[in-house]
Amino acid sequence: MSLEYSKKYYKQLEQAVENEENQFLIQEFSGKHYADISEILYQLDGPSCKYILELLGPDVRADVISDLEEDIRIEFLKQYTAEEVAEVIDHLDSDDAVDLLNEQPIKAREEVLTAIQDSEQAAYIMELLHYDEDCAGGLMAKELIRANINWTVKQCIDEIRRQAERVEKIMTVYVVDDHNILMGRVSLKEIILSKDDTKIQDIYVPEIALVHTFQQEEEVAELMQKYDLEVVPVVNVQGKLLGRITIDDIVDVITEQAEIDQQAMAGISENVESSDGIWALTRARLPWLIVGMIGGLFGAQFIGVFENELTLVPAMAFFIPLITATGGNVGIQSSTIMVQSMAGSSYIHDTLWDHFVKVIGVAGVNGLTMASLVFGFNYFFAGPELAMVVSSALFCVVMLASVMGTVTPVVLDRFGINPALASGPFITTANDLLGLGVYFSVAKMLLHL
Amino acid sequence: MSLEYSKKYYKQLEQAVENEENQFLIQEFSGKHYADISEILYQLDGPSCKYILELLGPDVRADVISDLEEDIRIEFLKQYTAEEVAEVIDHLDSDDAVDLLNEQPIKAREEVLTAIQDSEQAAYIMELLHYDEDCAGGLMAKELIRANINWTVKQCIDEIRRQAERVEKIMTVYVVDDHNILMGRVSLKEIILSKDDTKIQDIYVPEIALVHTFQQEEEVAELMQKYDLEVVPVVNVQGKLLGRITIDDIVDVITEQAEIDQQAMAGISENVESSDGIWALTRARLPWLIVGMIGGLFGAQFIGVFENELTLVPAMAFFIPLITATGGNVGIQSSTIMVQSMAGSSYIHDTLWDHFVKVIGVAGVNGLTMASLVFGFNYFFAGPELAMVVSSALFCVVMLASVMGTVTPVVLDRFGINPALASGPFITTANDLLGLGVYFSVAKMLLHL
Repeated sequence: MSLEYSKKYYKQLEQAVENEENQFLIQEFSGKHYADISEILYQLDGPSCKYILELLGPDVRADVISDLEEDIRIEFLKQYTAEEVAEVIDHLDSDDAVDLLNEQPIKAREEVLTAIQDSEQAAYIMELLHYDEDCAGGLMAKELIRANINWTVKQCIDEIRRQAERVEKIMTVYVVDDHNILMGRVSLKEIILSKDDTKIQDIYVPEIALVHTFQQEEEVAELMQKYDLEVVPVVNVQGKLLGRITIDDIVDVITEQAEIDQQAMAGISENVESSDGIWALTRARLPWLIVGMIGGLFGAQFIGVFENELTLVPAMAFFIPLITATGGNVGIQSSTIMVQSMAGSSYIHDTLWDHFVKVIGVAGVNGLTMASLVFGFNYFFAGPELAMVVSSALFCVVMLASVMGTVTPVVLDRFGINPALASGPFITTANDLLGLGVYFSVAKMLLHL
Repeated sequence: MSLEYSKKYYKQLEQAVENEENQFLIQEFSGKHYADISEILYQLDGPSCKYILELLGPDVRADVISDLEEDIRIEFLKQYTAEEVAEVIDHLDSDDAVDLLNEQPIKAREEVLTAIQDSEQAAYIMELLHYDEDCAGGLMAKELIRANINWTVKQCIDEIRRQAERVEKIMTVYVVDDHNILMGRVSLKEIILSKDDTKIQDIYVPEIALVHTFQQEEEVAELMQKYDLEVVPVVNVQGKLLGRITIDDIVDVITEQAEIDQQAMAGISENVESSDGIWALTRARLPWLIVGMIGGLFGAQFIGVFENELTLVPAMAFFIPLITATGGNVGIQSSTIMVQSMAGSSYIHDTLWDHFVKVIGVAGVNGLTMASLVFGFNYFFAGPELAMVVSSALFCVVMLASVMGTVTPVVLDRFGINPALASGPFITTANDLLGLGVYFSVAKMLLHL
């Protein structure tokens, strides 16, 4: 379904903009989904995009702009006056409107806010601006259909008609009492199948999954996944219905969370993208590189202690990369499996002890296999004595790195740190040092140096 | 919202099962969401779970069983006869029904199929069994509301009434022609707001995002994310409407894909969970450990070439872990950023060349910073000559590892291999060898050995 366009096509569009062939442009874009339009616009320059969007009417324009990637949108909207930005905001759902307003330079925000024509929208935005963008309040939209529990189905349908413009996707009707306390919900199916004079209180479903404004976005995502919800209502501490969160925003949260976890595993300390500047990318990457570097310098000091032994048996140095790499690989595997089991529900029914016993078992099998293979190889290439040292050390390193990799995420989690960090440079650096320690200790012991 | 229960509570439940206090058990579970019930049942033994589910009626029973984790469900259903499994399947949506059937031992499937009471459900299942479970056909459910384009709204409502039992969440009504070719859709809102004698063809929306049965689940996920869909229709090559895919299944696909990518980064070659057996875990982990091991043995051979140099300057060995660790860390960072940018749309508007220039820039800044810090340290601890060698090598390694880390995902992707593999043991092993090569070459050059 993804559309791919040729360079020639983009040339043609640019030409059309230049020659102001509005007829052609309107025809080209009308009927296209906003996500497809934004994909095309990524290829054109700012003024051309603005020109084309001008032709497409305020609704499509707002949807396309809201669909752009954040950093590109910020850049793009610099061409717009406060009044033009306000007009875009007028045609967005309140949650997207607030996101867009928050991206504006602080001094421009006030100006944009006062230029908003739709007073209800302005009130919505003023309310939503209070919430942190990572919590349920910051994710919710104000647009929803609310029915009083004392209404009839007819009154409810009238309300749907009244709000039809504003609430594009209804999904479900929320039932509240006279004080706007959330009581339950009625599905559109139920409304269609009920008579006009049926009382809402006779058909509504009382139990309802809900979230509070202060809950973190990860909690909201977890709840919606657990109960297979497409939409969830948001209430304040008194239980008053304030808004709703739709699944498309939660899909974005889940995707972003997965990206952040991957970055943590890779030792990238801020959420960056390849399109960010050199400075942002460096700032995100350097901290963990320096941690690794300090680990490496410690390692150098540590090996330095064994300088005499190395002079006697220089071949000992050959296997340093084997030992450190194995420790790192085993540690990352162990911590990744642990992190994922902590995220899933299998964490609940396996006790920590069961898990630990299995970790030892797997490490034992892996350690023995690798130690044997390496011994077979080294027996011929490095002699039986050194082969014994390397394989013994390798086995110990596999066991220790498995335990470290399993325990570290649990410890990090207890301290409120993202356990995915444990599968990153943190564990490799620690395991490098651990591996060197084991290797040289075993060597000293077995070689009687 | 997540419920946490005490050990005492589970004891009480087990006691109640033993004493057959059915009244208490029914009261305890009635009104609870199936996802909450399954969470409680994870803590009880198989027979107790079966006893409790017996009390809750066929609909709740089916939902709870379908909500269990796959491996636990397979174990749990071993207590059930083919007739009992068939009864569970009778009360599930067709997509979940097929998944459950596919988990049964092959010889039991035929028996279960013939025991299904609902002939329409049996037909649905027979059809869905044809599709691979990773493609759109394998994800879709047959339950949906279909309206002929020549119908009136009244006829459409009658159809909704007829299917009310079977189609729990309607979401949207699909419009087809006399040959079941998908023409478009009508929202429930539109149906509520239209008069009974309105023709469907006057209110339906013709353009519609759809997927074909053969499309991969990742493609479906991408499309639904792009267009912010809660549900998408599935058609065959002739354009006939066959089923629909709902967003909850896609959320599972996205979550699973993220897990698989993380595992690829960690060098785990099969999708395993900590609850899997020792053999499965070993089989998933050992292959990449052995790749790393072979890399380590190559490294040993390589360092062996420089045995004489090492005997002259044993301090050279001290910095082997620093060099290899830095190469690994830089490589993982670079490839993760590249992989994520390939998944997002920023891949489109940055050309590969722009990206490459930036990679060199970031690597230059990181490399210079680290090389300077290490030089400062080593100047005092290892002398100016060796300090120069280590820092020069470090800088080269950072540059090379950045380029390798950036290029590898692109190459893997071209060959149809998951690029997330590039952020795993693959790149660290390659970079270990690269780092050693650079280090010893620089040493030989600068120290005139």
